[in-house]
Amino acid sequence: MNALDPLLEFLSIPSVSTDPAHKEDVRKAALWLGERLRALGFRVELHETPLHPILYAERIVAEDAPTVLVYGHYDVQPPDPLELWETPPFTPTVREGRLYARGASDDKGQLWAHVAALEGFAPRVNVKFLVEGEEEIGSPHLLPFVQAHRERLRADAVLISDGAMFAPGVPTLTYGLRGLCYLEVRLKGARRDLHSGAFGGVAPNPIQALGWLLARLKDERTGRVLIPGFYERVRPVSEEEKALWPHLDEEALKAELGVEVLPGEEGYSPLERLWTRPTLDPNGVWGGYQGEGSKTVIPSEAGMKLSMRLVPDQDPEEIAELAEAYLKEVCPRGHRLEVRRLHGGKPVLTDPQSPPMRLMARALEEVWGRPVVYTREGGTIPVVAELKEALKAPIVLLGLGLPDDNLHAPNEKIDLVNLEKGLLALRRFYELLAEGG
Amino acid sequence: MNALDPLLEFLSIPSVSTDPAHKEDVRKAALWLGERLRALGFRVELHETPLHPILYAERIVAEDAPTVLVYGHYDVQPPDPLELWETPPFTPTVREGRLYARGASDDKGQLWAHVAALEGFAPRVNVKFLVEGEEEIGSPHLLPFVQAHRERLRADAVLISDGAMFAPGVPTLTYGLRGLCYLEVRLKGARRDLHSGAFGGVAPNPIQALGWLLARLKDERTGRVLIPGFYERVRPVSEEEKALWPHLDEEALKAELGVEVLPGEEGYSPLERLWTRPTLDPNGVWGGYQGEGSKTVIPSEAGMKLSMRLVPDQDPEEIAELAEAYLKEVCPRGHRLEVRRLHGGKPVLTDPQSPPMRLMARALEEVWGRPVVYTREGGTIPVVAELKEALKAPIVLLGLGLPDDNLHAPNEKIDLVNLEKGLLALRRFYELLAEGG
Repeated sequence: MNALDPLLEFLSIPSVSTDPAHKEDVRKAALWLGERLRALGFRVELHETPLHPILYAERIVAEDAPTVLVYGHYDVQPPDPLELWETPPFTPTVREGRLYARGASDDKGQLWAHVAALEGFAPRVNVKFLVEGEEEIGSPHLLPFVQAHRERLRADAVLISDGAMFAPGVPTLTYGLRGLCYLEVRLKGARRDLHSGAFGGVAPNPIQALGWLLARLKDERTGRVLIPGFYERVRPVSEEEKALWPHLDEEALKAELGVEVLPGEEGYSPLERLWTRPTLDPNGVWGGYQGEGSKTVIPSEAGMKLSMRLVPDQDPEEIAELAEAYLKEVCPRGHRLEVRRLHGGKPVLTDPQSPPMRLMARALEEVWGRPVVYTREGGTIPVVAELKEALKAPIVLLGLGLPDDNLHAPNEKIDLVNLEKGLLALRRFYELLAEGG
Repeated sequence: MNALDPLLEFLSIPSVSTDPAHKEDVRKAALWLGERLRALGFRVELHETPLHPILYAERIVAEDAPTVLVYGHYDVQPPDPLELWETPPFTPTVREGRLYARGASDDKGQLWAHVAALEGFAPRVNVKFLVEGEEEIGSPHLLPFVQAHRERLRADAVLISDGAMFAPGVPTLTYGLRGLCYLEVRLKGARRDLHSGAFGGVAPNPIQALGWLLARLKDERTGRVLIPGFYERVRPVSEEEKALWPHLDEEALKAELGVEVLPGEEGYSPLERLWTRPTLDPNGVWGGYQGEGSKTVIPSEAGMKLSMRLVPDQDPEEIAELAEAYLKEVCPRGHRLEVRRLHGGKPVLTDPQSPPMRLMARALEEVWGRPVVYTREGGTIPVVAELKEALKAPIVLLGLGLPDDNLHAPNEKIDLVNLEKGLLALRRFYELLAEGG
């Protein structure tokens, strides 16, 4: 890549949006990126929000030139557990053609390919950047911004690189993303922590109660979510669509994860489950004594983070309502339940045959020398559904990461070859677009 | 109390036996206590163990005098969660006749009543102190010590104050204790933390699996433990015994705990469940993201602390075997299970009508001016069963705490009036014993 040094600098800023302690670092990342875009001839605006700023930048070459809007995010997930990183998360390190750092793939690295593609390259295309710092916490302030600036954001295509190629060496365009509904659930029992000897047998135990709740949320045998109405709006997937999917190498996936089975909802293939079926997963749990050795306590409180991935036409708000109502209904006797909605995002499907998708497919095939595959993805980019609704522009989801990039996990990385080829494909796309397709 | 200042000093030593960071503090508490006993004319020995030292001290007045062995422990539970203490756990503070500190009731405060009773008081009784620093971690090194020193520990009565009175103002002698089997359970799924979008639907989730395990361990409707064979050795309790029990004020207990129900095993009264029925309670749980906000991770591992209170004639080793076998059997698909045994203790019943119990009852009734009640306790003092087996001496369990002492919880306290009256009763007991009963 012709511009790795600045990316290392970008990645070294710990812009963890969910952690108030990193508020200034998040801002620093936005300012840093603004400087880089300004150097490329962009007019840059930093828009304050109640939390992290939105960066908007544009390079207008001609009123009648085609216009591209690039969306990305400069915030990252928390890096813990820190002890599992081979090199520190905010000390970007290249090993064997891979760049390791928090944000290397999600999303600073992929976003950087879009910036670097425009260095010393000025196609007759108007380019706009919309970059937020709240993607990892559900983009709470982006939608109002997009709605307020709909005119300025107008574009003939929206480019987003915040996903993965289907496999190494396989150029990939994505036409579907899952949505998200993320809750925090707390159970409270007695007013104070209790000695498990003195009170065991009469005291509510919120940890035990969380276990009962989890068992009522998902059936162990079938893997199905047990919230009434959960599957009601799930749109069936046509056999035609499935026939176009690439083959998933299940054995390779098992080996990658270090597992002997791929547990999930019965009656669906792993690829169907990942791309077209909603899921429910606890993402964190806490309560009582977590230290070394033993403590015979019955805690007064326990809690968990609980998220559901959604598919068309599920709605995050409606699912949150259903989940809350059900949790209240099955809350174990003697416990008080508190549910907080942390964030959500709508699922989305885009048109794989839109004009900019066709152009991008051509550009990718020229650079990679092999046909593009079309995929859905299991992850969520909340803003995609919002941009699609607000801007009515075709969306191109060009993943430059790989499934083993360790997103949201220790040792996040990106393969540099994909950034380099991605950059070349983007330039070719701009050329094709400038030529009128 | 005529000796509160030294107790404040004793309580200010953070002798947390389960935490390696406090190893030196545990030792310091033993040395401190040794100095106090030496000042009272005791010959003091500190016996090293692989972990925390055992303190043995004796004051022999005559070969043919009756002999009493006092058992206690100078170690304490961890003080967390620290933020819930009104005053710091190791800054002992008196408020409204109550002394607040970690260890105030369990067991430094109660032990101190036995030491203070002998200050300026020299009955014709040989007194021996056996004080350990590993009670809160299951007394791993006391039994070998007791077995090796059986002759020297010989006594006509063993006095233990490490429990509670039935209610304020009610002098209490305890004749039964539950046992304990404490496990740490870990579940492992994929080899690394995974993004819940990219892998939700095919990845094992150890938090969800812990929930399924917990639901299989205890039935939500009946409150019964589901481990096969768990109840097999439980000795039935006679109607005669139950008829002697004091009345438990369930409404007062609910008010104290701040709960509307007292959940537990169906078919048994709260007092039966506390004193004569085994229980299972998770004491801690952890996994995934526990911080502020949201992180969409499927963790590779989750764990819990799990303890069972046992009753005669359950055996901790056998219960651990049964629990481990069952956990392996019901371990959710796609997960690896690891079980560690942290500690155990046998349940015990003693004779409420033994000669020293009768003397102590008389002493208590004289000091308190009201009849003694006889109770069992839900807690465990592992050494009691061991002392009973090894020394064959009658055991007197004289609780000087109260049920609301916040043992193992923030704001542990002891009511000073109970220490004072306890001290007077102990002196009267020694006088009666010296007189030959």
